[in-house]
Amino acid sequence: MPASCRRLAAVLGLCLALPVAADEGMWMAEQLPELAPQLRAAGYEADPAALADLTAAPLAAVVKAGGGTGAFVSAQGLLLTNHHVAYGVIQYNSQPGRNLLEQGFAAANQSGELRGSPDFRVLVTDGFDRVTDRVLAAAAGKKGLAYFDAIDTASKAIVAECEALAGRRCSVTNMDYGAEFYRIRQLELRDVRLVYAPPSAIGKYGDEIDNFMWPRHSGDFSLLRAYVGADGQPADYAESNRPYAPPAHLTISRNGPKDGDFAMLAGYPGVTYRHRLASEFAERIDWGLAASSEALDALIAIIEREGARNEEAAVRYASQLASFKNNSKRFRGELAGLLRSDAKRKRSEAEQAMLAWLRHDGRCAKGRRCLDGGETLTRIATVESLLEQASATRERDLVLNLILTQTQLLRAAVTLQRLALERGKPDAQREAGYQRRDENLIEAQLRQLQRRYDATTEQALLLELLRRYRELPPSQHLAELDAAFGSDAETARTTLARLYGATRLGDESVRLAQLQAEPAAVRASDDALLALAARLQPTLLRLEQQRKEREGELLRLRPAYMAALKGWYRDQQRPLFPDANQTLRVSYGRVSGFSPRDGVIYSPVTTVAGIVEKNTGEDPFAAPAPLLAAIAKGDFGDTADAALGTQTVDFLTNLDTTGGNSGSPVLNARGELIGLNFDSNWESVSASWWFDPRYKRAVHVDLRYLRWLMDKVYPAHWLLTEMGVPAAR
Amino acid sequence: MPASCRRLAAVLGLCLALPVAADEGMWMAEQLPELAPQLRAAGYEADPAALADLTAAPLAAVVKAGGGTGAFVSAQGLLLTNHHVAYGVIQYNSQPGRNLLEQGFAAANQSGELRGSPDFRVLVTDGFDRVTDRVLAAAAGKKGLAYFDAIDTASKAIVAECEALAGRRCSVTNMDYGAEFYRIRQLELRDVRLVYAPPSAIGKYGDEIDNFMWPRHSGDFSLLRAYVGADGQPADYAESNRPYAPPAHLTISRNGPKDGDFAMLAGYPGVTYRHRLASEFAERIDWGLAASSEALDALIAIIEREGARNEEAAVRYASQLASFKNNSKRFRGELAGLLRSDAKRKRSEAEQAMLAWLRHDGRCAKGRRCLDGGETLTRIATVESLLEQASATRERDLVLNLILTQTQLLRAAVTLQRLALERGKPDAQREAGYQRRDENLIEAQLRQLQRRYDATTEQALLLELLRRYRELPPSQHLAELDAAFGSDAETARTTLARLYGATRLGDESVRLAQLQAEPAAVRASDDALLALAARLQPTLLRLEQQRKEREGELLRLRPAYMAALKGWYRDQQRPLFPDANQTLRVSYGRVSGFSPRDGVIYSPVTTVAGIVEKNTGEDPFAAPAPLLAAIAKGDFGDTADAALGTQTVDFLTNLDTTGGNSGSPVLNARGELIGLNFDSNWESVSASWWFDPRYKRAVHVDLRYLRWLMDKVYPAHWLLTEMGVPAAR
Repeated sequence: MPASCRRLAAVLGLCLALPVAADEGMWMAEQLPELAPQLRAAGYEADPAALADLTAAPLAAVVKAGGGTGAFVSAQGLLLTNHHVAYGVIQYNSQPGRNLLEQGFAAANQSGELRGSPDFRVLVTDGFDRVTDRVLAAAAGKKGLAYFDAIDTASKAIVAECEALAGRRCSVTNMDYGAEFYRIRQLELRDVRLVYAPPSAIGKYGDEIDNFMWPRHSGDFSLLRAYVGADGQPADYAESNRPYAPPAHLTISRNGPKDGDFAMLAGYPGVTYRHRLASEFAERIDWGLAASSEALDALIAIIEREGARNEEAAVRYASQLASFKNNSKRFRGELAGLLRSDAKRKRSEAEQAMLAWLRHDGRCAKGRRCLDGGETLTRIATVESLLEQASATRERDLVLNLILTQTQLLRAAVTLQRLALERGKPDAQREAGYQRRDENLIEAQLRQLQRRYDATTEQALLLELLRRYRELPPSQHLAELDAAFGSDAETARTTLARLYGATRLGDESVRLAQLQAEPAAVRASDDALLALAARLQPTLLRLEQQRKEREGELLRLRPAYMAALKGWYRDQQRPLFPDANQTLRVSYGRVSGFSPRDGVIYSPVTTVAGIVEKNTGEDPFAAPAPLLAAIAKGDFGDTADAALGTQTVDFLTNLDTTGGNSGSPVLNARGELIGLNFDSNWESVSASWWFDPRYKRAVHVDLRYLRWLMDKVYPAHWLLTEMGVPAAR
Repeated sequence: MPASCRRLAAVLGLCLALPVAADEGMWMAEQLPELAPQLRAAGYEADPAALADLTAAPLAAVVKAGGGTGAFVSAQGLLLTNHHVAYGVIQYNSQPGRNLLEQGFAAANQSGELRGSPDFRVLVTDGFDRVTDRVLAAAAGKKGLAYFDAIDTASKAIVAECEALAGRRCSVTNMDYGAEFYRIRQLELRDVRLVYAPPSAIGKYGDEIDNFMWPRHSGDFSLLRAYVGADGQPADYAESNRPYAPPAHLTISRNGPKDGDFAMLAGYPGVTYRHRLASEFAERIDWGLAASSEALDALIAIIEREGARNEEAAVRYASQLASFKNNSKRFRGELAGLLRSDAKRKRSEAEQAMLAWLRHDGRCAKGRRCLDGGETLTRIATVESLLEQASATRERDLVLNLILTQTQLLRAAVTLQRLALERGKPDAQREAGYQRRDENLIEAQLRQLQRRYDATTEQALLLELLRRYRELPPSQHLAELDAAFGSDAETARTTLARLYGATRLGDESVRLAQLQAEPAAVRASDDALLALAARLQPTLLRLEQQRKEREGELLRLRPAYMAALKGWYRDQQRPLFPDANQTLRVSYGRVSGFSPRDGVIYSPVTTVAGIVEKNTGEDPFAAPAPLLAAIAKGDFGDTADAALGTQTVDFLTNLDTTGGNSGSPVLNARGELIGLNFDSNWESVSASWWFDPRYKRAVHVDLRYLRWLMDKVYPAHWLLTEMGVPAAR
């Protein structure tokens, strides 16, 4: 199986040639009835047809919660999600002397539940409808920017109509890169209360050190409860609100997962790139990932050098430094993963096979209508040339993007000038991100800057970025940028020194004043950095326009590629899922360990013994005394795994997940809840591009660990009873 | 099995209570016939009785080779051992432009074999006889130092008689801490030639990084050939010498190891402490290991500090620093292992049970003669008090030992004064280590000092050691040392500065001149350090005398403890092996992976896929191009593992090994050669004291990897034919 296959793979390339997509797939609910044979073959025992109904169990129980996913586990709106998804809610209720992050929390009863942070939302989907025809009708015959705008306008109109219904939040999202459009209608629950959370030492046991790692021993879960007004509609917090009655809730299994068991997961995965063109894979693998991590590494070195010289600068840039390091590490991990999976070659081979099918007689998928092979090939060729066009300035775009997003004061100047420009328009016509509703966020960023900015460090970072810019071929240069910073290091250095010496934007009150100032006054400002930003603005607007043109064309033409891919898949009787786009998806597979490298096998289930092994008494491995005592006591009862003879903690599946799947419920063959997704393994960091069945795993809390903790360690028996799994005693 | 047992263990303490010694044991050959039922139950298919015959196969094929073990694999004296055991021989044949360490070596035929380094010896045991009665008769009625000396004298007489036979090297060794004595007679083969060695990049693939680690991917083997003179007797190298015809040689198995298979290993393990008293376990766990690593860590910090200030000092102390770090790490690893195994408690419980048995009616082992329980208990109590006596100054002894062994110039001065003292006696009466035969080694050390000494660093190390000495309670102080260095830091500092400023021992010619000088002149030398060493000598001699007194008593009394232990074991029908003491031992068990921690399982067999995974192109993971090409080609033939479908590299067993077992042959159930021992895992670094079946593993080269390399990668088909496993084509 995986381990021996892996050995074979590296040596003989054998397994790689097997159909690898067996467990790949983030399926839309409406696709699941079609997958009934595969689901049954995989071991699913309930009715696959029922999975298409978003208003009934099990999928109606699955909701967006904060930045992740959650699932209702009782008829009274009790919601299970990750500790890290509910983190803000727990933090909101923490204060000196009553630190719930540290101590954990268990409400004694419903009236003891704590008000959540005002920004925490639970979104219950109550409508998911195809609106492709209406959206595309508006764009018919258009191209480029006009195509882009037509879709934008049609979508806005649909959203406005939809949101006429009270308490609903609507959106239009496209599938398969513009092939289909869907209107999503969601109930927006605003009164979400804290019911139960283990201490952080359990909820994020191992924290950054164990992040992405297996074996894991985190109890990354918490329980919230959604409330609604007396009228049953979403409402702000009020004591008189009553628990929300969800359309469905999940049943917790009495049994736990074991190696090879069927498993299924539903949630809101963020973004994947699995169906991108082979040339996009090649660019990411041959250039993008290495270029990005290399550039970040250079900036990391500068921040560390400046931090060594100036302790205050070190503190101010600590967060940015951590983010750079994290991203650089992830990019390198993703590259290593894609190389290990030989993704470039495989994607290219698959694409060539698809194109060959399209060119020859195969383009009529069995029993379906035919594709116009010639027209499709022409469109795909145009997509390739658009991508090539974008690639021509990729080095410049990378460095420019870093200049505009990873500086503090310069970014503030550019933002203020752009806002000044947009403020001159009616709000509805302003660019997204610069509308009235965005001004609070911009203000917050301008304030936050004070704690994240050091003039010397910013100039050093810019010097390096400008050096990289200067080394680019002339074809990638921008006249205004050349004019602003000159063509050699010395000019850049003296220019930066002059700009940063003269600007008053380092003063918070000066920055904030620009938010209220007359747009014309901002544009005419004699502040050195604001004036520079004003001079650069026409160029930046021109680049933005080009980008939108291209995006419009891609939105128009990529669907041809997807149609070819779908037809080719259909011809092989293989279903195809749309790339993830933050909409509800279902993945099925099985409980499964893996071999990270020759000679090492990871078990699919961990146990409390690992908590004791890892415990150092110091964060992030400071297991709470009650937990250690309970483990030592060994009183696990019916939550223990019979075969292992002890209490389990976390488990692995080969389910197809990505960021956004945090808090996704994991179901067994009968559709019962057995786990809670909270992470994936380091080896699968490249899975947003390529699903490698040898390495792609998802990490879940075993619901038996939750039950044991709530029964014996930090008891909340009334909640176990509410969830239908009463305490053992 | 181990993994689940381990989980249980940490939680419930259950498995730990099971009889853990199942696979523990470094058996003397003469014990093996008694173990026939156990050997058969474990799966051994050949005749256990044959294992007692040291002059026939398989044990007669197993010899001491260099610092490790080797095994004859042909009737023409072809000897298989580790690459790291034969390292000096390969190095001896390397020169600029023809670096055999780098390139490897394969003799084209017998006449192409290369002369070995003159100091490399192969020792073939041809006599192993019990001489207990003769040795102990000489010591009868004696105590302490007299007992020690009587045994020493009797042993020397036995050795002298034995060595009258030409070409033999003899020794007397004791078993069970003085209970039994054996005369070992060995043929000393001095003409040992290099026949085959893979490149170091294979032989020590992973080197220090992988050392002690699993999974491993080293081809740590080489082939030598022993030659004798025309008369068949050991001889110095001569072209006319002919291959030695060993009394037996091993047969290489056509099949390889797989999980659970019976395995057996023979070799020369160094020293173990398994049968030490519970109080000795407690002292090592509660004090010794932590105290030693803590002291080394302090010295490491000083060497690193001085090295940062002075690059030349850094170079000079690099080797000592590496050794300190290695030892400190090992001590910590050993402590962690003993704590994890709860060895102190378990050893204590076992000892208490044994003493209870001794005190009560159980002391007559079933069917054996009775022990005099009262007398035995008295002797054990005396051993305890002797150990306690030694412990009273353990802190002082630790620091003094570091002063005398881990300084360069001071150690030289002390050595020169001691040698001057011994040179005044007839050679036979000189202290071991200071006889005429030792003078070459002393001279070499005095020369080597030049490259390992820095005056500032040595003074800094001594300042720290003296500081530790001064902090000891007065009861541990030595008047002469106090007089020499004073009672405060400032006096110590100025004294050291004066001594090191004045001494001329830093000059090599001055040091070496002392070797030839009149003993009286050395003793009366006005050199500052020599004079200090002369003043300290009476104290050091007094301490040495005390130590010998105690050792004599322990040699006299410890056998009582061993007799009790043996009787108690016998009563439970459990055999007992003597602690390892560099004599031939046999261990049996099985091929077995293990779980190093919760959720992780180590496979017992690695494959060439791991070589590719680890390959970075840089030392120590620079797999040679021919190896990588051969792996990519995948042409493994009959050396591939059928189940894994690829070429294996190394494997793990639960065999009982310790240092000295390097190069030990690993045999299968039919007594055929399947592997070559070369390391153990980090988790078993504490096994010299306590064998924990959950973690104790030995690491072996899979003979199929050797066969594949010699067949397809660096071919030497004539050698495969000689070994009876001809190349596949």
